[in-house]
Amino acid sequence: MAKTISPLQKARAAYNPKLPKVLAAHGSALKAAMGAPTQSIADQNEIKNLFPNTYGLPVVTFEEPADKPIGAVKAGVILSGGQAPGGHNVIAGLYDGLKKIDAGSELYGFLGGPSGLTDNKYVKFDDAFINEYRNTGGFDIIGSGRTKLETEEQFDTVIKNCKALGITSLVIIGGDDSNTNACMLAEYCARMNSGITVIGCPKTIDGDLKNEWIEASFGFDTASKVYAELIGNIQRDANSAKKYWHFVKLMGRSASHIALECAHQTHPNVTLISEEVEKNKTTLIEIVKNIAGIVKKRSAAGKNFGVALVPEGLIEFVPEMKKLINELNDLLAANAAHFDSLSDAHKIQFVNTKLSHESSHAFSSLPASIQWQLLADRDPHGNVQVSRIETEKLLIEMVGETLSEWKDNGEYKGKFTAVNHFFGYEGRCAAPSNFDADYCYSLGYNASSLIASGVTGYISSVRNLTKPADQWIAGGIPLTMMMNLERRHGKDKPVIKKALVELDGKPYKEFLSKRETWAMEDEYQYPGPIQYFGPSEVCDVTTITMQMEH
Amino acid sequence: MAKTISPLQKARAAYNPKLPKVLAAHGSALKAAMGAPTQSIADQNEIKNLFPNTYGLPVVTFEEPADKPIGAVKAGVILSGGQAPGGHNVIAGLYDGLKKIDAGSELYGFLGGPSGLTDNKYVKFDDAFINEYRNTGGFDIIGSGRTKLETEEQFDTVIKNCKALGITSLVIIGGDDSNTNACMLAEYCARMNSGITVIGCPKTIDGDLKNEWIEASFGFDTASKVYAELIGNIQRDANSAKKYWHFVKLMGRSASHIALECAHQTHPNVTLISEEVEKNKTTLIEIVKNIAGIVKKRSAAGKNFGVALVPEGLIEFVPEMKKLINELNDLLAANAAHFDSLSDAHKIQFVNTKLSHESSHAFSSLPASIQWQLLADRDPHGNVQVSRIETEKLLIEMVGETLSEWKDNGEYKGKFTAVNHFFGYEGRCAAPSNFDADYCYSLGYNASSLIASGVTGYISSVRNLTKPADQWIAGGIPLTMMMNLERRHGKDKPVIKKALVELDGKPYKEFLSKRETWAMEDEYQYPGPIQYFGPSEVCDVTTITMQMEH
Repeated sequence: MAKTISPLQKARAAYNPKLPKVLAAHGSALKAAMGAPTQSIADQNEIKNLFPNTYGLPVVTFEEPADKPIGAVKAGVILSGGQAPGGHNVIAGLYDGLKKIDAGSELYGFLGGPSGLTDNKYVKFDDAFINEYRNTGGFDIIGSGRTKLETEEQFDTVIKNCKALGITSLVIIGGDDSNTNACMLAEYCARMNSGITVIGCPKTIDGDLKNEWIEASFGFDTASKVYAELIGNIQRDANSAKKYWHFVKLMGRSASHIALECAHQTHPNVTLISEEVEKNKTTLIEIVKNIAGIVKKRSAAGKNFGVALVPEGLIEFVPEMKKLINELNDLLAANAAHFDSLSDAHKIQFVNTKLSHESSHAFSSLPASIQWQLLADRDPHGNVQVSRIETEKLLIEMVGETLSEWKDNGEYKGKFTAVNHFFGYEGRCAAPSNFDADYCYSLGYNASSLIASGVTGYISSVRNLTKPADQWIAGGIPLTMMMNLERRHGKDKPVIKKALVELDGKPYKEFLSKRETWAMEDEYQYPGPIQYFGPSEVCDVTTITMQMEH
Repeated sequence: MAKTISPLQKARAAYNPKLPKVLAAHGSALKAAMGAPTQSIADQNEIKNLFPNTYGLPVVTFEEPADKPIGAVKAGVILSGGQAPGGHNVIAGLYDGLKKIDAGSELYGFLGGPSGLTDNKYVKFDDAFINEYRNTGGFDIIGSGRTKLETEEQFDTVIKNCKALGITSLVIIGGDDSNTNACMLAEYCARMNSGITVIGCPKTIDGDLKNEWIEASFGFDTASKVYAELIGNIQRDANSAKKYWHFVKLMGRSASHIALECAHQTHPNVTLISEEVEKNKTTLIEIVKNIAGIVKKRSAAGKNFGVALVPEGLIEFVPEMKKLINELNDLLAANAAHFDSLSDAHKIQFVNTKLSHESSHAFSSLPASIQWQLLADRDPHGNVQVSRIETEKLLIEMVGETLSEWKDNGEYKGKFTAVNHFFGYEGRCAAPSNFDADYCYSLGYNASSLIASGVTGYISSVRNLTKPADQWIAGGIPLTMMMNLERRHGKDKPVIKKALVELDGKPYKEFLSKRETWAMEDEYQYPGPIQYFGPSEVCDVTTITMQMEH
């Protein structure tokens, strides 16, 4: 049946993504300029031992055309993990690049994430298929999934399936974990002389897959702009109605990049940064008192309204809450059947009896609704589902209680009415901004060049991103270079280091210097919705985080 | 201190709103062409008796310039009720129109809504002031408020304050209630020979202030486009991740226009329409079973995901819930002190003892969290705060329970994981779409023409809105024409009739014809964010509701 598409989708289908000059000029058969051998950022000996075939590779840069054509290539691609705007353009860029290498090249898309590779579920792309998805949001072109590709059995199956189709290169589009696994697969394929190369692509709206060579993970630009649009609208509403405090939780479990970027785009009264909470070992009570203090000060200035941003993962960075969650995980996993058989009242009592004094105190000081979220919403392993804890409501309730105490003491005379919001799913599948559309298309096109040059264990790297696209630098970075060892479930594992908000970095320090002013003055900025067709200073501007970092 | 503004705000400040040809060509000194005398839509004798001075006035149309200049005018303006995108442009249009009549004209803005008029709190606009707010969202230019202007004491104060400033005309920008009160003020001013005229302007994102002469209330276009953007993004996410059902509650207490418009823009799997629920006397259990049935059917087709839209006011249209809420309001208001003194367990028992059997049954079948929302969240009059009931969570919980029963019976084998959203504050203060920017500016400019022609008790009317702006028809409609009598708190009151979704209208009937297909097929449409600078078919398209109605 003929699906209708919206006017914007129609207009956007005609957008021609911009490419780095070398990719646009010469097509994909490029000569890879090899730099000096590289090292991992830490734990060099261990990482080298784990990746003997893919360790120490040189940084690759593309500057001029290859000496001769390389012939048709058969490649496969998967989308891995959570959605991010621009994934479709990575695939479109990869497809166009492969076709430019040789019109006979073929691209297969494995369905539903990494499991598509092991289950051998795939589609073969053609022009009509790809054209339907150019410059669109979502991962619906082939779906995504969270299966971890990490065992040798899985790798053997992948190799077998690829060989059956004649596929000699795989592109894995994912976050830090997926790219770590891409590197393990590359190493295994090299060890087994499988003839299959593996290239990664940096995806995540969270913005925590970045370093000297990866200036941004794709999707961060679009997602944070969508959230900033909504925060701006809510600020304008708060400033018009002048009677509500809005608490906005923003997606981002590990890093607070999204909250920080949105703060720079909108200038809200309060922004919590998980990395700062962790460093200062700030307790929940201190966080609550700090917010309540701002509410009180604003109220004294006649302003019973405001906006506060809360990163999704905050609660895990609050020391006593982290301890409580860990204890609850152990306790409930070990006593699942008994616990489930108890009445509600006995559940609370059971938990309080078994927890350490500190955690029992932390648990008891939480609002009842949050206590139940901690006890009831557990994953199949019995773990507390941190992402389902309504931290924004928790803060509203506790701030309200603190203010009500202060009111009884005569310290506070205002009115506190709060509204909660959570933005995450609203931005993960937005149509990519011009930046993400260009960047993603370039990442994919560039991946085809990496494939053509025969390297493996690399991540597609497009740099110099604060400049216009024709000045972007195309190349590849060895995945091992970004790795270190981290303790996971009692074992040392090689992983790509997550980029958290740096407390001595410019984005955070600028925020610090403005925080007091933003708390009291209403310096709200209203970014409005992403624009695709207007003046370049509106449509092509990158994130403030990246501008400050480079 | 110098506030920074976003790139979009900067670019948007330069936008020149489009006007109907007669307003653009001749400026504001226009000759009012008077039609035949009019009647109220119902209760003609009663309305005539209540409004002897403003009843039966002719419809006004502007077609040609006035014979002679009328000199400088002093006018005042207020914003009344909830925010709607474009309010600032009404004021800008009014200001520009008054200045065109005579450069010596003055416009005062009364602060914080109707109470600004009685408290005599105001600002005087000048060019710099107005320029800062052109084409922006929000009501922060002068604030808004919900004070009702309806007593003769208030009217006397308004007249006194206006006379002190030399103001001879007031423009009241508001919804149905505010325009009803504008008409009462117009009548009173005429009766007292105060020399003050009153003009209303049709505002509300809910879209329920419309009729033959008022084709749309301003703000509905922008707000529903913002919500549709987010719903589209969520649909793309649902269709990519393929594991969540998203339940989206949308602002709109009385009418379901927003939900219906968003359904037409996005084609979700389920859309509830309150007017249909009321007409069919659908019970909550029937609603839940209907949704659960769609979840089950989709699951059988391998789709454990979907999107459902829920109008904010739904619960009040479900017959047994309406009855329950009414009984709770009476019960808790009459026994407030006693009720508050009870323990939680006794509160539930008390309520169940005192409610009718039917309501007690309805109450007991609700999830505990919703029972507490009904009991705990009461306004100062003891009434249940319907807008705070998390209907989207209520439905998720009850659909989940139904599916879990069906699973035990072997009727259902799927997995139901749901995420809830509420969109309201996200859209009320968005920067107005081109349509709302043009329409609002025209409404305000047109209001200055109505002032110049000396009429009172009129609402600013700009019609023919599905055509380009230069073909729009400018004029005024007597407010009494839109009135009927309604029973409020045991008394007959004259009010402007709310426009609910018409079950024999084209927007609803088209929806009905698509509903089954949308439920099962994934015909999602992704409208994307409002565009201000692109191709006209993207930037200037009006709501689907209006296109279908005209």
